[in-house]
Amino acid sequence: MNVLVIGANGQVGRKIVKELADSNHKATAMVRKEEQVDKLKEIGADNVVLANLEEDFSSAFDDVDAVIFAAGSGGSTGADKTMTVDLYGSIKAVDYAMDKGVKRFVQLSSVGSANPDEQEDKIKHYMVAKGVADRHLQQTDLDYTIVRPGPLSNDEAKGEIKISHEFPDIGDGSIPRADVAHILVDVLDRNNTYRKAFEVIEGEKEVGEVLETV
Amino acid sequence: MNVLVIGANGQVGRKIVKELADSNHKATAMVRKEEQVDKLKEIGADNVVLANLEEDFSSAFDDVDAVIFAAGSGGSTGADKTMTVDLYGSIKAVDYAMDKGVKRFVQLSSVGSANPDEQEDKIKHYMVAKGVADRHLQQTDLDYTIVRPGPLSNDEAKGEIKISHEFPDIGDGSIPRADVAHILVDVLDRNNTYRKAFEVIEGEKEVGEVLETV
Repeated sequence: MNVLVIGANGQVGRKIVKELADSNHKATAMVRKEEQVDKLKEIGADNVVLANLEEDFSSAFDDVDAVIFAAGSGGSTGADKTMTVDLYGSIKAVDYAMDKGVKRFVQLSSVGSANPDEQEDKIKHYMVAKGVADRHLQQTDLDYTIVRPGPLSNDEAKGEIKISHEFPDIGDGSIPRADVAHILVDVLDRNNTYRKAFEVIEGEKEVGEVLETV
Repeated sequence: MNVLVIGANGQVGRKIVKELADSNHKATAMVRKEEQVDKLKEIGADNVVLANLEEDFSSAFDDVDAVIFAAGSGGSTGADKTMTVDLYGSIKAVDYAMDKGVKRFVQLSSVGSANPDEQEDKIKHYMVAKGVADRHLQQTDLDYTIVRPGPLSNDEAKGEIKISHEFPDIGDGSIPRADVAHILVDVLDRNNTYRKAFEVIEGEKEVGEVLETV
């Protein structure tokens, strides 16, 4: 499949592109700035499209078979960008996917997004953004998978995880970005993950084995 | 009807409560602080319920026949509150209305919310919040009316307005808060406004005459 990676220049995004380069899929990396193009090609992107999540980016969906949405405004910008990028960027991406007949949609979300009101004040708005975006996706007829990792670390990939479908009971625990990127790519071909959302943290069971049980 | 006014202590909210007091409806004013209760009763609220939009406020929907959502975090707080109050507060209110069988839902939105990407950067996140909240409401089977006024003024009520269903073509023009409050109450009984959204600014035609054409 030709997989559009939205947020390809992010910390998880780059790892996703690398994972795709090592898989039987092709990566189309969507980035905002011209100067990011070469870097993404170096990492292994087959195509790089220039587009801005805060504008119309529907053209990025041409000739695409699947989408991985991994964009986030990050911690250095304000809640206004969480609204326009994390929330509205995802909503528009889902709308474009429907318009262009791209059925497969994998979304990077977060532990806590299923119950924003129970989060601490500082991160509540972020959880609302992720949760409302997830819900929008869940109301479509797309073949979605929503992956909600715990706090992300820069540790080496462990390759062993623990998941939960019951919210919010996964408990404490972080997960390396490398494992998250691997999961987002690994689920692409797994029909059993269609129309499912799950939380995930580092655990004791091998990724492939766990993903079979989603 | 017993009408729950969410955001009753706001600038438009208080005027809504006054309008309801002068109508054949009853006002149940939802406010956040104990010290606001007396003021709202003075204005004309039949009941006042204490509840917080950033928590579970479903109990406010008991014995209610209609809802007017007029809450906003205001200009003195950040975009994080726009997310948790303006957006998520509305989404939860709509969900509670559905859960409790309250069919009539009037939402105060804003000109520009139908096309957030075309707004200037400074207000874009606000328009996303309003637009996504409106869209959530429009996806339900509630008897909603979404009212999108232009910039609000504190002028005396003019009683004459101009509306548009085509976005974004209403053009420039503000509207007094008093007229907006009147419209939000006046549409309650008008079946022709069910499942409609319209922009409104000050105009040349009498409110009642215009609302018949929605």
